[in-house]
Amino acid sequence: MTHKNPRFIRIFDTTLRDGEQTPGVSLTTEDKIEIARQLSKLGVDIIEAGFPSSSEGERRVVKEIAELNLNSKVCALSRCTKKDIDSALDCNVDLIHVFIPTSPVQMKYAVNMTPEQVLTSAVESIQYVKKHGVNCEFSPMDATRTEMPFLQQICKAAQDAGIDSLNIPDTVGCMIPRTTHKLFKELREIIKVPISAHCHNDFGLAVANSLAAIEAGADQVHTAINGLGERAGNAALEEVVTTLHVAYGYKTNINTRLLYSTSRMVVSLSGVSVQVNKAIVGENAFAHESGIHTRGVTEQPLTFEPISPELVGRTRKLVAGKLAGTRGIQAELNEIGIHPNEAQLTEIVKRVKNLGDKGKIVTDADLIALTSAVLGEVIGEEKIVDLCDMAVVTGIKVIPTASVRLALDGNEYVAAETGVGPVDAVLKAIQKLTSNLEKIRLSEYRLEAITGGSNAVAEVVIKVEDEKGNIVSARAAREDIVMASVEAMINGINKCLLKNRKQGKKQ
Amino acid sequence: MTHKNPRFIRIFDTTLRDGEQTPGVSLTTEDKIEIARQLSKLGVDIIEAGFPSSSEGERRVVKEIAELNLNSKVCALSRCTKKDIDSALDCNVDLIHVFIPTSPVQMKYAVNMTPEQVLTSAVESIQYVKKHGVNCEFSPMDATRTEMPFLQQICKAAQDAGIDSLNIPDTVGCMIPRTTHKLFKELREIIKVPISAHCHNDFGLAVANSLAAIEAGADQVHTAINGLGERAGNAALEEVVTTLHVAYGYKTNINTRLLYSTSRMVVSLSGVSVQVNKAIVGENAFAHESGIHTRGVTEQPLTFEPISPELVGRTRKLVAGKLAGTRGIQAELNEIGIHPNEAQLTEIVKRVKNLGDKGKIVTDADLIALTSAVLGEVIGEEKIVDLCDMAVVTGIKVIPTASVRLALDGNEYVAAETGVGPVDAVLKAIQKLTSNLEKIRLSEYRLEAITGGSNAVAEVVIKVEDEKGNIVSARAAREDIVMASVEAMINGINKCLLKNRKQGKKQ
Repeated sequence: MTHKNPRFIRIFDTTLRDGEQTPGVSLTTEDKIEIARQLSKLGVDIIEAGFPSSSEGERRVVKEIAELNLNSKVCALSRCTKKDIDSALDCNVDLIHVFIPTSPVQMKYAVNMTPEQVLTSAVESIQYVKKHGVNCEFSPMDATRTEMPFLQQICKAAQDAGIDSLNIPDTVGCMIPRTTHKLFKELREIIKVPISAHCHNDFGLAVANSLAAIEAGADQVHTAINGLGERAGNAALEEVVTTLHVAYGYKTNINTRLLYSTSRMVVSLSGVSVQVNKAIVGENAFAHESGIHTRGVTEQPLTFEPISPELVGRTRKLVAGKLAGTRGIQAELNEIGIHPNEAQLTEIVKRVKNLGDKGKIVTDADLIALTSAVLGEVIGEEKIVDLCDMAVVTGIKVIPTASVRLALDGNEYVAAETGVGPVDAVLKAIQKLTSNLEKIRLSEYRLEAITGGSNAVAEVVIKVEDEKGNIVSARAAREDIVMASVEAMINGINKCLLKNRKQGKKQ
Repeated sequence: MTHKNPRFIRIFDTTLRDGEQTPGVSLTTEDKIEIARQLSKLGVDIIEAGFPSSSEGERRVVKEIAELNLNSKVCALSRCTKKDIDSALDCNVDLIHVFIPTSPVQMKYAVNMTPEQVLTSAVESIQYVKKHGVNCEFSPMDATRTEMPFLQQICKAAQDAGIDSLNIPDTVGCMIPRTTHKLFKELREIIKVPISAHCHNDFGLAVANSLAAIEAGADQVHTAINGLGERAGNAALEEVVTTLHVAYGYKTNINTRLLYSTSRMVVSLSGVSVQVNKAIVGENAFAHESGIHTRGVTEQPLTFEPISPELVGRTRKLVAGKLAGTRGIQAELNEIGIHPNEAQLTEIVKRVKNLGDKGKIVTDADLIALTSAVLGEVIGEEKIVDLCDMAVVTGIKVIPTASVRLALDGNEYVAAETGVGPVDAVLKAIQKLTSNLEKIRLSEYRLEAITGGSNAVAEVVIKVEDEKGNIVSARAAREDIVMASVEAMINGINKCLLKNRKQGKKQ
């Protein structure tokens, strides 16, 4: 679906403004600067860096971002007051985004102003921004619940006052694609400056509404990485952009290959994780478990993949489980250098399904354990690192401390380490040994959210990296968080060593 | 937006089938039965209980669910083979859902059959199901990438063979609402039996595509709780249904007040958490942090809430943070019985913003600590439980063990406990003391997902319940998971005691 003259859509990213309004998220100056640099590399056209009048720290960080001289333009948010606009002007941004409520309920309860007061305030604010030679985007807040005649009146007045772009926020996320299309079509007919859509996800429709606005003639969309934002968030940049490129054949300035790494950075700095089944950037977005699917993608990726994982900076993942098929499990075993024959494979698949039927998550260790049972301990023999002893203490006025004894190729090694907590201490102690012996280090640690009681099962996924830059991931699930972390780490180290030695033998 | 004769949409839920194909998810028989009972209470019309031929355990559980005599009809999935259909028939389900690939790429690579073979196989399978007196739904798999003449041909042939409903799966999630609408419109013109949509979320458009199919005349949608399913998942039941009820004024048999509790049950049993900014069921979906928003919703909920939280079984939540406003923080303090005057409140808000500017998540303990500093230690005086000492050990061949010393109303108490892990041990030790003294117990423990290194900050949210059934939640964030858990627990106990004693004084 490529076009000769594909439409170009401008991406206005609000991760650092509406995204930071995600309840519970608070970014330091350094975090915001790091994200701003990444957004610029990613290729967003405009970065909304913050709301300078909300706090002194916020004003300083917006100013610092504006002074980074990024490729992206930098924008500051401002209410329609002289004080707010002065704060924004002081930041030397390229663009000021002024907003004022225009719906009956918000004019009354959020600002207690009449429509006439709102109109005057908007026009005066826009003129004040433009008088200082700064670009101006105007948002009639809660536009989608504003009476149409007043919305048209204030948008035209804003255009006459000199705005460079008009943004239509679906502030409470109450639109569906059909109503969004109609609204933007009507505005498109009377507005000449670029129109933008700012959609919220309260019905789960932020992305679809953004696309509907574009179909009706919008030139720009507001997005946030991972769909961060107030309540259910904003339109996710990665979903809007991938759909525009793949399904519409439209263009943006985004380098889609950086989508995944950008998403991971924002997860890590915001502390807000994305669910495994989140489109494009969720852990499972390119993972396949059921037999029919794994067989299909290993034969021909197009069979079950509408989007190439590489396009968004990712790789395919095959997962063992009770619905797994023979080919998927074979591919997973091949990946770590194990090549069972057909009869062995059938038996391994049967045992995986049995384990899955009991409701167990089939971990890498499980798969290796039952494969090694089927192959007659072949893998067991090659297991390299074995955990013999381990002890961890923590408490009040106790430095979290761990000791471990590992067996490696017939020798035993002992180490102790302290850390910020018990998990950190024990993983450091293990690494102290393995990094000396085999140059393997922990490159990522992830603990899945635990819900339920304090005795719920904790699932840990880790990635370890060897000196050649090979990365292997491993997981473990236990009721004891410390033990789950240790087991995942040992599994990862063994997979990494196994892979290297198998490769060594082949060469 | 209510209609005189609102359209009725049938909900076919596939949480237990496609949802269980979520990589990493594996449910026990008991889990699946518990979810099936809840789906029936929720009011779904059809429960797709599983894929009987995939494993022996799967066949048994589908049969058990069919024998529960739920209000919902029970459906089993089956390929177009006699062996698969026999497995499904053996389960005594109300409905068998047969599928076969129809797109060129899947016919070639997934099943290696010609279009003629596919057509014959589909018709024979449908006739075989119907011959046994069981209802039949047919899916041309990968319908959205099937050539239109062949799709029309096989759908008509299936209709002639006696299907009760036709499901159109967007198997790889490659559709956008516009193309979905067109496809369903075309099929609606030639198909008389009910048409269903099964949408995947690869572009983040599963819900929007389901709605587009309904607008074009579909009678039924396939959904999954929390949007579980292969890759990026299926259309989320909670989002589709809430949008149909609120934005379209349509009817379903769903009792929306059970949406949240159903979502939580599925999170807990599947182990797949939903992100905080997930629509309808995410932790933040009804949370407000920024000043403009918290002021608005406390004056008039409609200002920033398109959906009433009660409609979906939830309550509103206000969160302190650097973008927080005065009214939100006041509401949060009032909730725990603290009523600062205006000058004190202004100072508290200033300090919250300072803390937020440093990138800190403002926890309940932080808010209480800085409020008590502003009010001149008023809250400090009323703090009831204080943690004096604590020690925890775990390891290999070590039973996780914890000891604590708490101060309560001037007396000190000591207790030790073992647990399945260090967190469990220490929380049990604390409860051993507090449950004797004040009848407070832990009712929920949640650890947010940790991503990054082993030294990343762990955020724990707990709920404690007193003997009157009052529930208080508290959170803490520390690098040490054990310490974060302990701090959250102590915060929760103190908030609970504080609330009770304040109420005691008032009466």
